Amino acid sequence: MADLAMLVANIAARAATATDRGRVADYIPELAKVSAGHFGIAVVTAAGEEFAAGDADMRFSIQSVSKVFALVEASCRHGDAVWTMVGREPSGSAFNSIIQLELEGGRPRNPFINAGAIAVCDLIAQGKDSAEAIAAIMARIRDLAGDDSIDIDPAVAWSESVTGFRNAALANYMRSFGVIAGPVDATLSVYFQQCAIAMSCRQLARAGRFLALGGVAPDTGLPVISAERTRRINALMLTCGHYDASGDFAFRVGLPAKSGVGGGILAIAPGRASIAVWSPGLSPQGNSLLGTRALEQLAQATGWSVFNPDV
Amino acid sequence: MADLAMLVANIAARAATATDRGRVADYIPELAKVSAGHFGIAVVTAAGEEFAAGDADMRFSIQSVSKVFALVEASCRHGDAVWTMVGREPSGSAFNSIIQLELEGGRPRNPFINAGAIAVCDLIAQGKDSAEAIAAIMARIRDLAGDDSIDIDPAVAWSESVTGFRNAALANYMRSFGVIAGPVDATLSVYFQQCAIAMSCRQLARAGRFLALGGVAPDTGLPVISAERTRRINALMLTCGHYDASGDFAFRVGLPAKSGVGGGILAIAPGRASIAVWSPGLSPQGNSLLGTRALEQLAQATGWSVFNPDV
Amino acid sequence: MADLAMLVANIAARAATATDRGRVADYIPELAKVSAGHFGIAVVTAAGEEFAAGDADMRFSIQSVSKVFALVEASCRHGDAVWTMVGREPSGSAFNSIIQLELEGGRPRNPFINAGAIAVCDLIAQGKDSAEAIAAIMARIRDLAGDDSIDIDPAVAWSESVTGFRNAALANYMRSFGVIAGPVDATLSVYFQQCAIAMSCRQLARAGRFLALGGVAPDTGLPVISAERTRRINALMLTCGHYDASGDFAFRVGLPAKSGVGGGILAIAPGRASIAVWSPGLSPQGNSLLGTRALEQLAQATGWSVFNPDV
Amino acid sequence: MADLAMLVANIAARAATATDRGRVADYIPELAKVSAGHFGIAVVTAAGEEFAAGDADMRFSIQSVSKVFALVEASCRHGDAVWTMVGREPSGSAFNSIIQLELEGGRPRNPFINAGAIAVCDLIAQGKDSAEAIAAIMARIRDLAGDDSIDIDPAVAWSESVTGFRNAALANYMRSFGVIAGPVDATLSVYFQQCAIAMSCRQLARAGRFLALGGVAPDTGLPVISAERTRRINALMLTCGHYDASGDFAFRVGLPAKSGVGGGILAIAPGRASIAVWSPGLSPQGNSLLGTRALEQLAQATGWSVFNPDV
Repeated sequence: MADLAMLVANIAARAATATDRGRVADYIPELAKVSAGHFGIAVVTAAGEEFAAGDADMRFSIQSVSKVFALVEASCRHGDAVWTMVGREPSGSAFNSIIQLELEGGRPRNPFINAGAIAVCDLIAQGKDSAEAIAAIMARIRDLAGDDSIDIDPAVAWSESVTGFRNAALANYMRSFGVIAGPVDATLSVYFQQCAIAMSCRQLARAGRFLALGGVAPDTGLPVISAERTRRINALMLTCGHYDASGDFAFRVGLPAKSGVGGGILAIAPGRASIAVWSPGLSPQGNSLLGTRALEQLAQATGWSVFNPDV
Repeated sequence: MADLAMLVANIAARAATATDRGRVADYIPELAKVSAGHFGIAVVTAAGEEFAAGDADMRFSIQSVSKVFALVEASCRHGDAVWTMVGREPSGSAFNSIIQLELEGGRPRNPFINAGAIAVCDLIAQGKDSAEAIAAIMARIRDLAGDDSIDIDPAVAWSESVTGFRNAALANYMRSFGVIAGPVDATLSVYFQQCAIAMSCRQLARAGRFLALGGVAPDTGLPVISAERTRRINALMLTCGHYDASGDFAFRVGLPAKSGVGGGILAIAPGRASIAVWSPGLSPQGNSLLGTRALEQLAQATGWSVFNPDV
Repeated sequence: MADLAMLVANIAARAATATDRGRVADYIPELAKVSAGHFGIAVVTAAGEEFAAGDADMRFSIQSVSKVFALVEASCRHGDAVWTMVGREPSGSAFNSIIQLELEGGRPRNPFINAGAIAVCDLIAQGKDSAEAIAAIMARIRDLAGDDSIDIDPAVAWSESVTGFRNAALANYMRSFGVIAGPVDATLSVYFQQCAIAMSCRQLARAGRFLALGGVAPDTGLPVISAERTRRINALMLTCGHYDASGDFAFRVGLPAKSGVGGGILAIAPGRASIAVWSPGLSPQGNSLLGTRALEQLAQATGWSVFNPDV
Repeated sequence: MADLAMLVANIAARAATATDRGRVADYIPELAKVSAGHFGIAVVTAAGEEFAAGDADMRFSIQSVSKVFALVEASCRHGDAVWTMVGREPSGSAFNSIIQLELEGGRPRNPFINAGAIAVCDLIAQGKDSAEAIAAIMARIRDLAGDDSIDIDPAVAWSESVTGFRNAALANYMRSFGVIAGPVDATLSVYFQQCAIAMSCRQLARAGRFLALGGVAPDTGLPVISAERTRRINALMLTCGHYDASGDFAFRVGLPAKSGVGGGILAIAPGRASIAVWSPGLSPQGNSLLGTRALEQLAQATGWSVFNPDV
């Protein structure tokens, strides 16, 4: 594992000198304030060893990476009933597109595009006030990461809510079809807060480790979710985790992963490791440019692609 | 491996008694003639052991499964230049949809939807007559399967060509954008013949084995294509191999696979096995109903899902 | 004009016995309460003669017919600046479709689909509270109809607002592009109230008479809007007044007209008459079935189609 | 009518000095050869007086203006059966869009977009060879114009056919749904030849005169088509005659009219006149820029808008 330490360090060193760093998201003023100069990486192996470099302990807005944890929470509460409200197909569209909702009767394609994640928030909040729902998501993440200091960045949450008109459009649209059942504002409140969770790469990689372990919590040895559900969440991350660049990410990196417009990506190498990278500059499709490149280098060097025959 | 023999036999036995068998494709008269009662399965392990059951040696029209081999042929000839003409994203649409072609400037989303496969045929035929192109695809498949008896079913090829108006629309549309360069009729001729290749499950599983071996031909030990390209083709099969049910297939089965409307599916368990199943009844999305179910049972029992941690 | 009285009576008599009466709108509970048995017609000639029959004096929810008067109000306030926010092309889509908004950068196609009418409400409300805006629209309609008793049906307005999720989606979507500038809730409040205006056929025909007179108010002889703007509003009514059945209405009736899901239609025969019909049963496209048929009979009998050569 | 002569001369004079002349169509090489400097106008009144100016006697490729005459021919042969194959709604899309065909089961929206016109050609050719069909369309136009010298420009027809891949896509797509029944190539041959008809403004205005006369042929006094069908064709020209700028043309000009990418427009003022203008430079929507402007000036000066109250 000396190699892994060196590899992680090398990747961070290369990222530090990269000149083409993508564009920092500016659709939320709070996100636009972050410098494109940052890069962090943290690898937590299945066995629990940690390797980190760069800004691995600096907290950033995890944004859509939170959708993985919300799906876990919704699955624990509702099991397969999640899939009556949300599909599991790649969308072939931008993350915030509303066209498919109209063509497909208000049902979002998967839980990792905005519409689907809002529907998941609604499922979690069902019949309760939104405060309980976001508290449950936070408790889940803190528990998985083993770190109670993880919290919502209130400035980002506020920024999301006052500029979130497209998300409000998606929520109202789904509400008109009964795909979301609760009050639109309450559901959106959960969603906006969830997007505003701030975590470091190290915290994120720790929180995702159970996904590399067939759903088993490393500290207790007890299942967070079943092995089958874990495989399925990994499958969804591979096919839908990078919006309309999911196919390209699978092609280049070959790992289940979920990106966020804050520049973070959580990637899972089943049986091997949980990996988090962060660099705020984005590709045109809204995924971290240097983060994707780092994961490509890591997968290439380690042979962790799920498509690798291991022969 | 005694277990695998029994498992394959059990799967075939269960399929034999299934009552909900899907609908046999009827858009081509020749395909509609096949009985929904058939079911075949063949597993060829990485090491070369073979396990087969049911109608594993009966030949059927492989249809879109041929797109995998055409992509291999095009990659050998043109390398990464393939990706200038064809994308690698799931389409989020039906296999024969033309909408995205208009929205995206005539460029097909991936090589496994009809438009993309036609563009791949055009690449192979480039600058030569179509006879040479289809001969090259046939030679490739015969070589990979180690079986010179594999051939095109002329009745199916004819049936395809006289009813192939939607494919002709796709080809003409791409031609108007210069995405295909050759004469439309010649390109379509390659495509229609390729779709009409007849193979058995056993032949198909043998032909796909190199994809489970990192691209290495099992008989010679020489690479058919590089390990990296092999991973990438497997990734494409996982994200795009089942049209607009690719996400669901990844969710349920977790293996790279390509289906055809003849009812065949070729699935790859990297490092483990190449698997072919066949049952002519289709799901509404155009994928073999019993074939998918059989692969789900196989993946479950063997733990071959690429999302399995192996811990 | 004895003929016109008899014609109007005949049309009403025929409508009274019609068996195929369409479906009463049920997307708002208040609208669903109205009986499909009603039919009213009122013709006010350019010279001011009135001919009415059936339920011509029963008030109904004018719904989208109000969009004509809101456009007049917005034109008076903002002139051609209206067209920077709203297009003037038929949509080729359903009245509440959101697809084109995404494909066309949030700009609604015309002021007579829901999105466009909401944008018009926002223009009227600009920089003021919504109460002033709806008051201005009401004052305009009362003035044009010469009838201060015209009012909003509060039960319908409430029903609109608690079920108006698709309209809320449209408004939020446009807000995200800056096409509407004011607070979404305030703008929607204007829109929902405007849709809930209750008028009789007679009141509606009187209120529309200036559109048959080149924009001149019949009582004062003063222009409400210029002759050119009047022609243009008539043109918009012809090309966009019946949602995605506008072409068919022009084909069959040949008059500028605007329909509402309450079953009302206001039609203008330039230089001849203002006509209002009402029957709550709708066609699948959301236009009054008997109302359309009545206008077809009237246009046929009078020769008032704008496409009539008068030779 | 001295005024009309002067008006026409003034309009031509203004057009001659215009600097912003639009872009000559270049998608067919033959069309691209025409100079943007041309402008012609011809007005033939209902009574038969003719007023012409500029290049009114220079022949140009009438392109889509031919769709009006093909619709007349199909209506004479098939009556209302035309409307089982073709709709009569504005498309809300570009002239050569294929998206709506997929969303609406292969049925074109109206006879004036490419798909609809191809379906009309197929109806005319039904059960006969394409030579008869194009001969019938030519005979119809020559008869209406009273001019046997009108002919197809073979270079343009050839140019259309060798570059017409998008039209071939539309035809094949409709053929797959049975919307066109004949051999695709034969149907396209009729369409390409029809588009390549060369006429002058004067010939075109003469040929359209019956549409201003309720369908009556001016020379014989006999109906070419019924008064009702004439009104309906005029309605279609108003709602669908300028592709996705039809609403704007109705808004600005207020006359039924059909444009072609050769730069010609045929406009009808029912009961007043048939008007043809020509200038090869196009707007982004594919309609003659100076031609549209000329018709706007003419309609403004004469008051011929169908939305004019004549009070």
